[in-house]
Amino acid sequence: MNNWKIFQEQHKDRFLEELLALLRIPSVSARSEHKPDMQACAEAVKTRLEEAGATIVTIYQTDGHPIVYAEKIIDPSKPTVLVYGHYDVQPADPLELWHSGPFEPLLKDGKIFARGACDDKGQFYMHVKALETFTKTNSQPTNIKFLIEGEEEIGSPNLATFVKHNKDLLKADVILISDTSMLSMENPSIDTGVRGLSYIEVEVTGPNRDLHSGVYGGAVANPITMLAKMIASCHDENNHITIPGFYDDVLEATTEERAKMAQAPFDATEYKKDLGVTELWGEKGYTTNERTGIRPTLEVNGIWGGYTGEGAKTVLPSKAFAKISCRLVPNQSSAKITEKILNYFKSIAPEGVTVKAEEHHGGEPYLTPIDSIAYRAAAKAIRTTFGKDPIPVRGGGSIPICALFEKELGLKIVFLGFGLDSDNLHSPNEKYNIENFYKGIETIPYFHQYFAEMNA
Amino acid sequence: MNNWKIFQEQHKDRFLEELLALLRIPSVSARSEHKPDMQACAEAVKTRLEEAGATIVTIYQTDGHPIVYAEKIIDPSKPTVLVYGHYDVQPADPLELWHSGPFEPLLKDGKIFARGACDDKGQFYMHVKALETFTKTNSQPTNIKFLIEGEEEIGSPNLATFVKHNKDLLKADVILISDTSMLSMENPSIDTGVRGLSYIEVEVTGPNRDLHSGVYGGAVANPITMLAKMIASCHDENNHITIPGFYDDVLEATTEERAKMAQAPFDATEYKKDLGVTELWGEKGYTTNERTGIRPTLEVNGIWGGYTGEGAKTVLPSKAFAKISCRLVPNQSSAKITEKILNYFKSIAPEGVTVKAEEHHGGEPYLTPIDSIAYRAAAKAIRTTFGKDPIPVRGGGSIPICALFEKELGLKIVFLGFGLDSDNLHSPNEKYNIENFYKGIETIPYFHQYFAEMNA
Repeated sequence: MNNWKIFQEQHKDRFLEELLALLRIPSVSARSEHKPDMQACAEAVKTRLEEAGATIVTIYQTDGHPIVYAEKIIDPSKPTVLVYGHYDVQPADPLELWHSGPFEPLLKDGKIFARGACDDKGQFYMHVKALETFTKTNSQPTNIKFLIEGEEEIGSPNLATFVKHNKDLLKADVILISDTSMLSMENPSIDTGVRGLSYIEVEVTGPNRDLHSGVYGGAVANPITMLAKMIASCHDENNHITIPGFYDDVLEATTEERAKMAQAPFDATEYKKDLGVTELWGEKGYTTNERTGIRPTLEVNGIWGGYTGEGAKTVLPSKAFAKISCRLVPNQSSAKITEKILNYFKSIAPEGVTVKAEEHHGGEPYLTPIDSIAYRAAAKAIRTTFGKDPIPVRGGGSIPICALFEKELGLKIVFLGFGLDSDNLHSPNEKYNIENFYKGIETIPYFHQYFAEMNA
Repeated sequence: MNNWKIFQEQHKDRFLEELLALLRIPSVSARSEHKPDMQACAEAVKTRLEEAGATIVTIYQTDGHPIVYAEKIIDPSKPTVLVYGHYDVQPADPLELWHSGPFEPLLKDGKIFARGACDDKGQFYMHVKALETFTKTNSQPTNIKFLIEGEEEIGSPNLATFVKHNKDLLKADVILISDTSMLSMENPSIDTGVRGLSYIEVEVTGPNRDLHSGVYGGAVANPITMLAKMIASCHDENNHITIPGFYDDVLEATTEERAKMAQAPFDATEYKKDLGVTELWGEKGYTTNERTGIRPTLEVNGIWGGYTGEGAKTVLPSKAFAKISCRLVPNQSSAKITEKILNYFKSIAPEGVTVKAEEHHGGEPYLTPIDSIAYRAAAKAIRTTFGKDPIPVRGGGSIPICALFEKELGLKIVFLGFGLDSDNLHSPNEKYNIENFYKGIETIPYFHQYFAEMNA
């Protein structure tokens, strides 16, 4: 056992306690009532970074939620790793489906149940503990910077401005992000990309007020019915997306790439059982892994309109709403796709209703190279602690800021994620396996060591 | 001015005050939290009926909300009129669209704004004041019974049992109901029928939990999308309803009937302007009045699923829901149509989701004869106070209990409604014109007088 491992074993219970304290702060960036919690969470992150040995730790206020920056520079001649993460979390609702309070972390069966346990508090905190390991064992191999933001779950609206105005501060050799998953502890993997995102909200208005469905039903267009027709029209019978031009910029994966993807372990029976569905669904001509990795998708994230309470109300509502988002792949552009969807919805709006559609947020798709020093250092670190080479896979989620990092800072990203797809990200009962948390803290220092060595 | 009118003029302000007090009770039958308000409202109705001179007034408890029965029998040899009405109201939401509190009645521009102002507190209360007029002027021409229930807005689930067990109590010569509208004060009309109702709630379940739309989107069926497809499929391109067998039992109106309907005043420009829509919508081949009167319809009354809060949440939800109701015409059967809709939704459910559909409540369509003594008495009463013959029209709404009254009590119904279509029934800012309220109180005594005379 080396010094890192000895130190980590001695302090593992405290590491976990510290994470639980962070998880108790309901830092939901999407909800304005949590603004004070966002500030409190940023301050807690700052304190922890100071305790871990960072020499400079600063909270930058933005037009939205604060950004925490930290650094520990040990030697300007050594390579610099910029760790990016986020302390904000998704809204917790539907609350009634949680088995325990989303902000009252519960340890059970070797898992931490809480909103943000995996996404991303549990994951970025591994890096804070890696820094502490270096500090306490006096063995830091690289310069380390931290950029922990509070708006990832709402599309990082203020991070772009911050990055543009702080290029020197953020100067580094690589960006390291733990905000993705691996296939399993037995099949460790590294994500080689994230999908982009377009997120819109549609408001359909029919009559100027809610109407009695007996008096007016059948005589005016019902906005719910019209919205349903619009949503239904977004996919054809092969589950291809019908929005004109949607696939125009999609970079088709090569036969070779698809053959490689097909080698990743996938058990359809287990997958269906885990999700409780009898059949899978998706774009004809593609496998499940392709559908969630290399293909763009369109999902309705929420819908509402009319009477949704107990019992019955015979109303023909004035309005209906939907939240709809697309996952994008290279070389689709978030702005272009958003425009296409908005135009599509406006163009198919039947007479008798008006459609207002507006953008929530977006992000560009991003691919990482797998022949870079950083990727090789990450792969070697995983080989060291897992005893196995990681499988490169394309991630289905989105980290809106990746493309901007590359553009503004000229830096490549390496995704070193320790979550699992079954961690219920964005869902009730989000969890993170305690084992994965510790395994991440164990693995990360090796990345820094190998990255320094390979750059030497 | 006769004695009735003199008495009514002297007490008109008090009549209005009494109605406002009744409107302040939030007697929402669909919401369990209003159970105490339902009891309070029944007791208030009882007190008012006693004050108006009813000799027997009883509150009957049911498995749901209480029924108020009252009577004033003056002479067993005179004909008996059974007045039916309801003291329960529709839920008030969406609350944010009300300009004043739904249960804080506001008098403005000659209108009473409150939930229940027209439907049906304002209307049944006219009969209470007609009774008081008779009592105080000692001039009651008929025996009068009152049956004021608290569950009309939820489909009268307990009234049928009550009627079946109290046939003697409810013995009468005609049923008189003020729970419908007239075309306008300039074009008084009498509804000659109400449509039936089938009301169902659909629950579509996809995965067993809310999923991250990036990780799983595109790979499993989204219950919102599937529900949208099901709803979209309910109408074809001509806005005919596609549910198999839906129109099987529809009694087609004759060319003559349709020609007569076409004579009712209707101004499409005004209608559209009032509703704030640029185009009307509906079943091809029928006029607006036909669509809302003699044709069955299917409307989505509510829909919900996924994330509906502020901002964005990238979730692929586990469930989506809709409330859907049909208005039925003779000779459709509510039970049969409900079964057809339930079967249809289950049959079109795509693989990968499960559909649960259940019935809320229903009611049969009902037509009144226009050659009966009661209809002629009503028409003459309107001629007396409006100076014009009423136009017979088919009403679009539903009063679920009508068909049962006929079946169990062997009685015909006459609809003597004083509301207007623009009264925002079931909508925010429900109102009732003060003029219509007084006009109803003025007209109703003449109905009793003429009904007694014609039966003599």
